[in-house]
Amino acid sequence: EHPLWEQIGRSFVHHYYQQFDLDRNQLGTLYSDTSCLTWEGQPFQGKAAIMEKIASLPFQKIQHSITAEDHQPAPDTCVLSMVVGQLKVDDDPVMGFHQLFLLKNDNDKWICTNDMFRLALHNFC
Amino acid sequence: EHPLWEQIGRSFVHHYYQQFDLDRNQLGTLYSDTSCLTWEGQPFQGKAAIMEKIASLPFQKIQHSITAEDHQPAPDTCVLSMVVGQLKVDDDPVMGFHQLFLLKNDNDKWICTNDMFRLALHNFC
Repeated sequence: EHPLWEQIGRSFVHHYYQQFDLDRNQLGTLYSDTSCLTWEGQPFQGKAAIMEKIASLPFQKIQHSITAEDHQPAPDTCVLSMVVGQLKVDDDPVMGFHQLFLLKNDNDKWICTNDMFRLALHNFC
Repeated sequence: EHPLWEQIGRSFVHHYYQQFDLDRNQLGTLYSDTSCLTWEGQPFQGKAAIMEKIASLPFQKIQHSITAEDHQPAPDTCVLSMVVGQLKVDDDPVMGFHQLFLLKNDNDKWICTNDMFRLALHNFC
């Protein structure tokens, strides 16, 4: 059996990418008005700004796959998750990415307070 | 001027890699007895277990360089940092890595409560 925080983290990240690939405009329920997103170094704060950024991403189709995921219990009963994965956008070649999520319980729902995303363009072979 | 949390995050990660490359056995002051490390998917909890893992890494010389770093304010007045970088171990070829740190203030000192490290072996060219 996985510890509870690992179940929470796994469940969140799998739901996140499934929803992202199906209809990313529905991701807003996972953020709050104080959530932070840093997307390729660009900062966004609050659900509205985050959803505007996500909606504006210039592709039609996207498919994420998770290569590795790590989860830890964090202070203030948060759960911290780091994902390494690959994504395919429209007809472009597959790219690597990494993303982290800090999750906090809010009224029995897990909200993403912190989200950081980077494409793995900086790495070597 | 960078926001305070960004100054804290930057200062911590630069100090961390400088100390890691100089003498990684001195990193213990940056962790507490409840800190978590996940190293390439392997979990370690508490300063002693973390330092034993770090000391046991099978190389003599290591040199980290930071390619990109992102920082955010996190719940419970923590600071969250994600680093993408490259490292060179002994005479091996350069490898990519990514690492995250969650930092919490404890008696006017910033302690790493959560640390996750992955080599970028899973990525594409």
